[in-house]
Amino acid sequence: MIIVMKKGASDAQLAEVKKRISELGYQSHVIHGETRNVVGAVGDERGKEILQSLEVLPGVENVVPILKPFKLASREIRAEPSCFELAPGVMIGGDALVVMAGPCAVESEEQLLSAAIAVKAAGATVLRGGAFKPRSSPYSFQGLEEEGLKLLDRVRSVTGLPIVTEVVNPRDVELVGRYADIMQVGARNVQNFALLKMLGQLGKPVLLKRGMSTTIQEFLMSAEYILSEGNQRVVLCERGIRTFETATRNTLDISAVPVLKELSHLPVIIDPSHATGHASLVAPMSYAAVAAGADGLIIEVHPHPELASCDGPQSLRPEDFALVMAKLREYAVVAGRKL
Amino acid sequence: MIIVMKKGASDAQLAEVKKRISELGYQSHVIHGETRNVVGAVGDERGKEILQSLEVLPGVENVVPILKPFKLASREIRAEPSCFELAPGVMIGGDALVVMAGPCAVESEEQLLSAAIAVKAAGATVLRGGAFKPRSSPYSFQGLEEEGLKLLDRVRSVTGLPIVTEVVNPRDVELVGRYADIMQVGARNVQNFALLKMLGQLGKPVLLKRGMSTTIQEFLMSAEYILSEGNQRVVLCERGIRTFETATRNTLDISAVPVLKELSHLPVIIDPSHATGHASLVAPMSYAAVAAGADGLIIEVHPHPELASCDGPQSLRPEDFALVMAKLREYAVVAGRKL
Amino acid sequence: MIIVMKKGASDAQLAEVKKRISELGYQSHVIHGETRNVVGAVGDERGKEILQSLEVLPGVENVVPILKPFKLASREIRAEPSCFELAPGVMIGGDALVVMAGPCAVESEEQLLSAAIAVKAAGATVLRGGAFKPRSSPYSFQGLEEEGLKLLDRVRSVTGLPIVTEVVNPRDVELVGRYADIMQVGARNVQNFALLKMLGQLGKPVLLKRGMSTTIQEFLMSAEYILSEGNQRVVLCERGIRTFETATRNTLDISAVPVLKELSHLPVIIDPSHATGHASLVAPMSYAAVAAGADGLIIEVHPHPELASCDGPQSLRPEDFALVMAKLREYAVVAGRKL
Amino acid sequence: MIIVMKKGASDAQLAEVKKRISELGYQSHVIHGETRNVVGAVGDERGKEILQSLEVLPGVENVVPILKPFKLASREIRAEPSCFELAPGVMIGGDALVVMAGPCAVESEEQLLSAAIAVKAAGATVLRGGAFKPRSSPYSFQGLEEEGLKLLDRVRSVTGLPIVTEVVNPRDVELVGRYADIMQVGARNVQNFALLKMLGQLGKPVLLKRGMSTTIQEFLMSAEYILSEGNQRVVLCERGIRTFETATRNTLDISAVPVLKELSHLPVIIDPSHATGHASLVAPMSYAAVAAGADGLIIEVHPHPELASCDGPQSLRPEDFALVMAKLREYAVVAGRKL
Repeated sequence: MIIVMKKGASDAQLAEVKKRISELGYQSHVIHGETRNVVGAVGDERGKEILQSLEVLPGVENVVPILKPFKLASREIRAEPSCFELAPGVMIGGDALVVMAGPCAVESEEQLLSAAIAVKAAGATVLRGGAFKPRSSPYSFQGLEEEGLKLLDRVRSVTGLPIVTEVVNPRDVELVGRYADIMQVGARNVQNFALLKMLGQLGKPVLLKRGMSTTIQEFLMSAEYILSEGNQRVVLCERGIRTFETATRNTLDISAVPVLKELSHLPVIIDPSHATGHASLVAPMSYAAVAAGADGLIIEVHPHPELASCDGPQSLRPEDFALVMAKLREYAVVAGRKL
Repeated sequence: MIIVMKKGASDAQLAEVKKRISELGYQSHVIHGETRNVVGAVGDERGKEILQSLEVLPGVENVVPILKPFKLASREIRAEPSCFELAPGVMIGGDALVVMAGPCAVESEEQLLSAAIAVKAAGATVLRGGAFKPRSSPYSFQGLEEEGLKLLDRVRSVTGLPIVTEVVNPRDVELVGRYADIMQVGARNVQNFALLKMLGQLGKPVLLKRGMSTTIQEFLMSAEYILSEGNQRVVLCERGIRTFETATRNTLDISAVPVLKELSHLPVIIDPSHATGHASLVAPMSYAAVAAGADGLIIEVHPHPELASCDGPQSLRPEDFALVMAKLREYAVVAGRKL
Repeated sequence: MIIVMKKGASDAQLAEVKKRISELGYQSHVIHGETRNVVGAVGDERGKEILQSLEVLPGVENVVPILKPFKLASREIRAEPSCFELAPGVMIGGDALVVMAGPCAVESEEQLLSAAIAVKAAGATVLRGGAFKPRSSPYSFQGLEEEGLKLLDRVRSVTGLPIVTEVVNPRDVELVGRYADIMQVGARNVQNFALLKMLGQLGKPVLLKRGMSTTIQEFLMSAEYILSEGNQRVVLCERGIRTFETATRNTLDISAVPVLKELSHLPVIIDPSHATGHASLVAPMSYAAVAAGADGLIIEVHPHPELASCDGPQSLRPEDFALVMAKLREYAVVAGRKL
Repeated sequence: MIIVMKKGASDAQLAEVKKRISELGYQSHVIHGETRNVVGAVGDERGKEILQSLEVLPGVENVVPILKPFKLASREIRAEPSCFELAPGVMIGGDALVVMAGPCAVESEEQLLSAAIAVKAAGATVLRGGAFKPRSSPYSFQGLEEEGLKLLDRVRSVTGLPIVTEVVNPRDVELVGRYADIMQVGARNVQNFALLKMLGQLGKPVLLKRGMSTTIQEFLMSAEYILSEGNQRVVLCERGIRTFETATRNTLDISAVPVLKELSHLPVIIDPSHATGHASLVAPMSYAAVAAGADGLIIEVHPHPELASCDGPQSLRPEDFALVMAKLREYAVVAGRKL
C-alpha cells in the first residue's frame, strides 16, 4: 500500500500515519517528494486491506493499493498453466481444446438426447444443459430441477459425454454433485461466496463464470475462494460483461483471455452464446476466442432454437454447430492446439 | 412484443411468423410499413418472453419487447405508494423518513453499543450492522456470524432500536430471521433467486439492495420474486452502480429514486456510504437523496473509522452523523417529510 | 509515479529502472518490500506521464500514478471557490444560485421569446438556446446557425437575459463570441482540444459540459486546457454519463458535484434535462442538485414540448418550470444559497 | 416508431396521438392489446425522430424506435461489402487484409524512418504516425504538427508506404489533406460533425475510429455524415470502448466486427494497441480480430517503446511486430484472406 499525504500535510500528521502503520504490524518507508510525501507500508500482503482505513486520518489524500490481492490463483504461486482432468479422458489446460455444448435448459429427454448426439458427433467432449435456471423473472421457466439432472444422467449413459450443469443454491450442491461431472457457477453467483466455499470443499471441477460487472481482479478473487478450500480444479469462463452497448446481449471481453493467462495459471474458456445473444455471432466469436488463446468454449446448441424455452435467439442449430467445429479445427492448428 | 421483419422479407416468412405466434397462444396484428412490416403479438403478457425466440426465424430482423415484465411491483397493480411497518412504531413509505445507521460490520459489543447509542441520539430509528459479510477476498474479515447476531440482539434490547442485517445464504434465512427485524439482501445477491424466494416465504420486511450492474427493470423483477411469494414488505435500496468512473467507489444513480417511484409503489431508500465510498461525500448525497424523494437512508457510522475492520473510509464518526441528521431535518421539511 | 517491480526481478533490472528515471530528470527512491520492490520517482510533476513508458522495461510489473495531473483547476492552486461574473449582474460561485433555462434549439423568434419571457418571470437569470446543434444523425435538424444567434441577440435585447449558446467548431468561435455572453462546450466536444484552446484565448466565460464517458480527472484536464490559455472563467457542468442503465437517457452522476468541489475551485452546475431525458425527472434532480451543493442548473424549457424540433421529451412547460423554481427557492435556503 | 399507450389511457388520448401522427405526415395503425394499445407510425423513415416528442402527450407511456436511422452505411442500400482503394495498390474490403503500422506520434525523422522500414519489411502496407496529437493533458506532448506531416511525406517517398494520419481540427483538413493518403478521425472526434462533413467533402479515404462510448448505431450515424456528403470511402475502426474494467486501457469490443458487418457494407479494422494499452496483448487481439472477420489492423510499432513520447506501454518493438505478422499470415489463410 502507498499512503499519499496531502500537499502541506504536517509532520505530526505524517508521524501519526507512520504510528498507525506500525501498530497494524507493517513497516513504513517515507518518500519525500517535491510537493508531498508518500509512505509505503511493507509487510505481509494478505491483510493489507486494513490499511485502506488510514484514508480517514488527517493529512492523508488517498491510499493506493499496488499489489494484487489473489495468491493461489496467481502465476507467482504457479508459473506453469494448470492442466487437469474434467472427467475421465477430458483434460483442460493442455494442448487439447475443450468444447462444451448443448441446450441452455434441459427441456425433455428427446430434446437433450438429440442435442447430445449432435454435439458429440461434431466433436464436443462435454454436454451442457441447465436443470436449475436462474431467471430474471419469476414468471419465466425455472428449469426441471432434479428431473433435469436425471435426464442429464440418462443422456450421459447413452452418449458417454460428461456433464456440466449449474448449481445456484448452496443447499443443492450435494444434489447436483451426485449427477454433474463439472459444477457450473453462473454469472449471477460469481460472488455467492457461500456457494464458492462449498464447491471448494466438494472437490469436483468447477466452471466459474465471470459476472456481468466483475473485474478481472474480483473474478480471480472468486476463484481464490474455491482454491483456498483445497479444490484446485477451477476453469474460468468469460461470458461477456455489461456495458452501454445494446447491439449485443453483453460485450464479450475477449482480451480477458490473455489478461487472465498473464495473471493466473488457471484455464480460461469463452461462452460466445451468452456473450453475444445472437446465433449469427457465435461462429466469429468462437474463432476469435481460440485465436486469442482460450482453452475451450461453451456453446449453446438446440435442435429447434425457435421453440427453446430460453435463449433461443443465441442457440445454434446442430448443423451450424458442426460447421463451426470444422472451422475451429483449422484455427486450433494455427493456435498450436488440438480439437 | 413487436416482431420487426427484414426489408424484403417474403410473404411466406411473414406467414410463418404469424403461424408461430398463433401456436404460442397469441394473436398477431401486422402493420404494413413503407420499407418493412412489423407484427404485434397480443395476449397474456406474462409469458411473452417466449416470443423472443422468433428472432431466429428467416425474415425476422429483431423482436422488440414493449412492456415491463413486472406486475406486483408495478403502479398498475397498486397506484398508491406502499406504506408499511418495518418494526413496531417504525413505518416506511409514509410521511416519516427512515434513517438506518450503524457500523458496516459488527465487531464487538462495545463498538456496536457505542454506535447504536450515538445513532439513536441523533435520530436514527433502525440499527444496521453486518454479522455475515460477503467479502471479495477470502482473506478479509468475514463477520462474526451468529455471535454477531447475538450482539445485535443484545444491543437492541438495550437501545430499543430494531435491527437490519444481511443474510447471504439461503441456509441462514431461518437463523438470521430469528434475530433480525429487517432482512437485508446485499448487492451481490440481488439475483440470488433462491434467497429471494425464501425471504418471500419468511414474511419479514426485506431491504433489497440493487446490484452493481442491475438495471431498474431487473431490480423490480427481483422484488417481484419476493412479492410473488406473498411478502409485500419490500424496501428498494439504491447503493450505487458500477461505471467507468473511479473517483467514487460506485456511481450513485440518484435518478433511480423518481424512476422507481414512477414505476413502482414500493418505498425507496439510498445508501450514500457504499455508493460513494468516502465519508466526505455522505452528507451531500444524503441531502440529495431526500430532495430527490427518497423514503429513507442507510448510513454507515463507526465510533472509530480508522480502526474499522471494513469500509472505514466511508464511515461517519458519530459527531458527524449528528450534524448530517440535523441538516437532513431541514431538507425533510422542504420535501414535505418528517424526520 | 510508483514503479512496481515484479516479484523476483533482478538487481540489474532494478538498476536499469533507476538509471532510466535519472535520465528522465527524476530521482528514484526504492522501497524494498517483502515480495517485491517498488520505486518512487520524485521531481516535477507535470512531465511525469513520460515515466509511464518504463512499464515496458524487463522486470517492471506496472507503473502507478499517484498524483492528479491537473494544476490550475485544483484546490492546491486556489483553496477558495472561484466566484466570477458570467454577465453584468450575474455572478456564479457565490451565494446566489444561477439558473439557465430555455429551449434546446432556437426554432423561431416566437418560440424563443415566449420561452425567454417565461423563464425570466420564473427567476432564471440566463437564457439558453442552441443555434448550432450537434446531432447524431445528419438527417436531424441541425440548428438555425447564425440566424439563430441573431434571434438570441434580439431576445436578449427585449428581455435583458444574457445568453449561453453552444459552439461546436473552432472556426465559429469568433462568430458565436460576437453574440454569446457565455460560450457553451457540449458533451461531445469536451476533448475537442483545439476548440478549448481557442475559448481559452477568447476570454469569455465558458460552460464546459462533461462528456458521456469523461472521468472526473479528464474533465478537469479539459478545463485545464482553457485555464492554461489564461481564461479563468470556466463553469463545469455535469449532464449525465453513459452507463448500462436505459431507464434514463444518461445516468446523472450527482456525486460529481461534491467530488469536483473537493478537487477544484471551479463552480459546478447540473443539467437535469439531458441527464434524465424525461421531463418528469427534471424537478427531483434539480432539487437534488441544489442539495448536493451545485452552484446552479441549466434546464430545458419549451412553450410546446410536443412540437419541439429536438429533445421534446425532456423539456419542461413554462408553468412546470415556474413550479420547480418556487420549490428550488426553498431548497436553496436550506443549502445556504439564494435564488 | 411504436407509440405505447398507458394502461387505461382514454379514447380521447389515443385520438390525440393519432391526430399528431397524421399532422407530422405519418399514418397510424393501432393494435388493441389486452391491457393497452400501441400505435405504429408508418411513413418515410428519415424524419421519424420527431415522433419521439409524442412521449410528452397525456396517455403515452413511451415511444419505441424500431428502425435503424442510418441509410447509406447500411446493407439495405448495398448488400455486398464495399471494397475500395486506400492508396494506389492498396485495396481494403476485399481478400487482402490491410495492416497499418507505425509509431503513435511522429517524433523525428530517424524514429519514423526506422519504424517505417521495419513495418514495411514485416508486411505492413500503410504507415501510421500522428502529427497532431489530441492529449488529455495540455502539459503532454502535442505532436510536431506540420513538421510531422513533412516527415511523413519524406518517409513515404523513401519507403513508398502510403500514410494514415489524424486530423483533429476542421481548420486543418486542407493542410493534412495535402500530405495524408488516408485521413484519420480519432475516437474523441467521432461526433465532431463539422470535421466529418468536411472529410465527406474532401473525398480522401477516411479511417473513422469509434469513440470510447459510442454505440454501434451512433458509430454508423457518424459514418453516415461522411457518406451523405458524397465520400464513400469510409473505414470503420473499433479501438476499445470504455467500461468498468481497468486491467486493459479500454475493452476491445471484438464482436463489433461481425455486428458492423451484418449492419453495414463498410470495411472494419481493429486497433489492438489503443484497445488494450499493453504490448503483450497486441498479438492475441490481432489474431482474434482476423479470426472474427476484420478487414485489417492498425498497430503501434516504435523502435524504442521505452523512450516513446506517448503510448510506449502499448507499442510493439519491430522484431515483435514481425513475429505477429508471420502468425497473422497463418490466421489469414484460415479466415480465407491474404496478407
